[in-house]
Amino acid sequence: MFFSKSFIPILKNNPAEAKIKSHQLMLRTGMIKQSSAGIYSWLPLGFKVMKKIEKIVREEQDKIGAQEILMPTIQSAEIWRESGRYKDYGEEMLRIKDRQSRDMLYGPTNEELVTDIFRTSVKSYKSLPQLLYHIQWKFRDELRPRFGIMRCREFYMKDAYSFDINDDEALFSYNKFFLAYLKTFKRLNLSAIPMAADTGPIGGNLSHEFIILADTGESKIYTDKRIFDVKSDETKLQKESLKNLRGEFEKFYSVTDEKYNEKDFNDKVPEEFRLKTKGIEVGHIFYFGDKYSKPMNSSVDFQGKKEFVKMGSYGVGVSRLVGAIIEAKYDDKKEIMKWPMSVSPYDCAIIPLINKGDKKNIDKAINLTKKLKEHNVDYIIDDTEESFSAKMKKFNLIGIPFQIIIGNKTEGDNFEFINVGNDSKNLNIDEIVKIINQSKKN
Amino acid sequence: MFFSKSFIPILKNNPAEAKIKSHQLMLRTGMIKQSSAGIYSWLPLGFKVMKKIEKIVREEQDKIGAQEILMPTIQSAEIWRESGRYKDYGEEMLRIKDRQSRDMLYGPTNEELVTDIFRTSVKSYKSLPQLLYHIQWKFRDELRPRFGIMRCREFYMKDAYSFDINDDEALFSYNKFFLAYLKTFKRLNLSAIPMAADTGPIGGNLSHEFIILADTGESKIYTDKRIFDVKSDETKLQKESLKNLRGEFEKFYSVTDEKYNEKDFNDKVPEEFRLKTKGIEVGHIFYFGDKYSKPMNSSVDFQGKKEFVKMGSYGVGVSRLVGAIIEAKYDDKKEIMKWPMSVSPYDCAIIPLINKGDKKNIDKAINLTKKLKEHNVDYIIDDTEESFSAKMKKFNLIGIPFQIIIGNKTEGDNFEFINVGNDSKNLNIDEIVKIINQSKKN
Repeated sequence: MFFSKSFIPILKNNPAEAKIKSHQLMLRTGMIKQSSAGIYSWLPLGFKVMKKIEKIVREEQDKIGAQEILMPTIQSAEIWRESGRYKDYGEEMLRIKDRQSRDMLYGPTNEELVTDIFRTSVKSYKSLPQLLYHIQWKFRDELRPRFGIMRCREFYMKDAYSFDINDDEALFSYNKFFLAYLKTFKRLNLSAIPMAADTGPIGGNLSHEFIILADTGESKIYTDKRIFDVKSDETKLQKESLKNLRGEFEKFYSVTDEKYNEKDFNDKVPEEFRLKTKGIEVGHIFYFGDKYSKPMNSSVDFQGKKEFVKMGSYGVGVSRLVGAIIEAKYDDKKEIMKWPMSVSPYDCAIIPLINKGDKKNIDKAINLTKKLKEHNVDYIIDDTEESFSAKMKKFNLIGIPFQIIIGNKTEGDNFEFINVGNDSKNLNIDEIVKIINQSKKN
Repeated sequence: MFFSKSFIPILKNNPAEAKIKSHQLMLRTGMIKQSSAGIYSWLPLGFKVMKKIEKIVREEQDKIGAQEILMPTIQSAEIWRESGRYKDYGEEMLRIKDRQSRDMLYGPTNEELVTDIFRTSVKSYKSLPQLLYHIQWKFRDELRPRFGIMRCREFYMKDAYSFDINDDEALFSYNKFFLAYLKTFKRLNLSAIPMAADTGPIGGNLSHEFIILADTGESKIYTDKRIFDVKSDETKLQKESLKNLRGEFEKFYSVTDEKYNEKDFNDKVPEEFRLKTKGIEVGHIFYFGDKYSKPMNSSVDFQGKKEFVKMGSYGVGVSRLVGAIIEAKYDDKKEIMKWPMSVSPYDCAIIPLINKGDKKNIDKAINLTKKLKEHNVDYIIDDTEESFSAKMKKFNLIGIPFQIIIGNKTEGDNFEFINVGNDSKNLNIDEIVKIINQSKKN
């Protein structure tokens, strides 16, 4: 891809309306464009990052045996009346009347709809457990949308739902998602900490938020620093192993604001390990038993009688993660962004120094691409006539982790190669490809 | 995947509300579930097919240099007032007031929104052409939704938009999409014919519908049979080559109802080639010049003056194609569905004959899967205790193109293998894998 042909509308300055770095950076590098308050279009650069995040989220859901479905965005108010949440949900729910004056709404979440699907589809406990997920747009009519896609109105979310015959099995399902989330965030190069959390309008009595530390976060958190050292690599997708993992985390006090109790915090956390800070919620899981299955009459046959299924729900903010990763990875002092390789819009930027009318370095850049294509290295060539320093500044914001500089000093088979944040090296293209592809495996 | 653990809620009989075969089949095989009038959830089997169609549509857009973006579903009424379509669009547009009483709507199409993105992003003709596409949910509040996902309210669509400096370049872009659509439908194993069509609420004076023949279609078509023999395999992504391709098609009279003129038809088509029949619209492309760019003031600098960009738009109904393929491929007499390999939910069904309490044949089935996994053959094993004839009937509706039957006669290394619609053969697993993977390449 040539930069001159790409649809990456770069802004020269930070837009005044953007208060946090992810919002600033996403507007400046043309990742998104606001279309109305709290509603954004995703332009190619932002879209690529979001799709890579989505793919990782999907793969980790598939690994625990969850099956993907896709529920519509527009729901009937009927099922929300059945569950009793239609009135409760308040003004954040975007309520709609269709041309026949039926009460509809844009789904802010899908507990009701998935319960309706389940109750008409599954009759016997033998088909349990069922883990269903979908990745779909949601709408919450925030009074004051802000911080770009971090607190917007239309957002892209993975939400999963589990159906089990009893509490014990349901907690097994809960723990599978607990592990899937740890693995998901790890692949995104984020250290997200599971914290005991309030259940809010979803309901139930067991809930964890997955939070990444960030000064700009809206969640206040109180945690024992040792929780950062808990490892999940050895955990197996088995009941005991998963229970142990949860146990390892729960050894350490770690809660969000609503669950915070000063005395507990001080009693349970030695002073040197106490951490009061802010974070960004990137995932939230809930166990709520029969809160929806009972009013909506969703039951299965079990030994001759009807049992209401026990349900949980599990959300990851796919679009929000794009911003969260920027908040976590952007280097404020150096003004440098570096995407984790797993979600970078391109693997590598090729930046030729171009003197007006002299295409020599562009030709050199094009020559390189054959080898890159052969080894599945995805690149963008900056063929614009901007000054070299302007280009470097631009790419340091765009955040592609590797840069190949083709300048006047480039001679023979070696190129200036930068692993962003490190000193540059002179390497030939084979060495460069090797380093890039190695970094994809990590 | 085991059938007993999958979420494929099969219905015993055709639901009374379903009038056409695609609607019947999709409900019976648990591909979709209606959630409210004209609004459906996609269950795993239907979701898999739709995702495979989406992937093919995406790849062919990428091949012509279109860049993927993602616009939101909820739009502001403002931009529709600018273009003048807010009033015109009528009751099919789902109009919404948000909590601040702002006029919003659920996008039925995206000409306005993409023009708004373009005008704030591109300033110079040097950045042209730009081809942008997205694949997103749309809503049209049909008065009488019917035929399942064929004429529903919330539907999944790929819509692309082209921006060029003049008519000549714009027609080059138009023809690129023309070719991309022919290639897309071919990969879906559909013979879709481009027909001169009315432009309706989109506007402009050049338009083609891509139509597949089907008795249950809602479009009346009048065509010269020789158009089915026009080949596009040799066409290159170059101006002349594409123009020639369009010319080859336009040699033959081929129009939809609105464009039909009896005298023309009889004059231009020799009697033996005349075909009056019905079809399903699966794609629609439009050229409308400055219809949106002018009122919305979307221009670029060209030799010192402002030129309104020349635009076209290009739609493919991704969700509708699932139904269209069924309408085209379902064999009414034999009551057999066979998905094209490129979009089948699984590559292969393994159907063991199971006597109560005897797991022998399930074990044989599981033994096979190692080889299948090694060669990326995606399978589903029917481990339910249904009768063999019930299983065969079920899988003939589900439509997976290949079946491996493991019955009491299965001995040694050979299995009964059925390429659906053909006689069964006794083959070993290596031969089976070879046939399946060969069919994926076609």
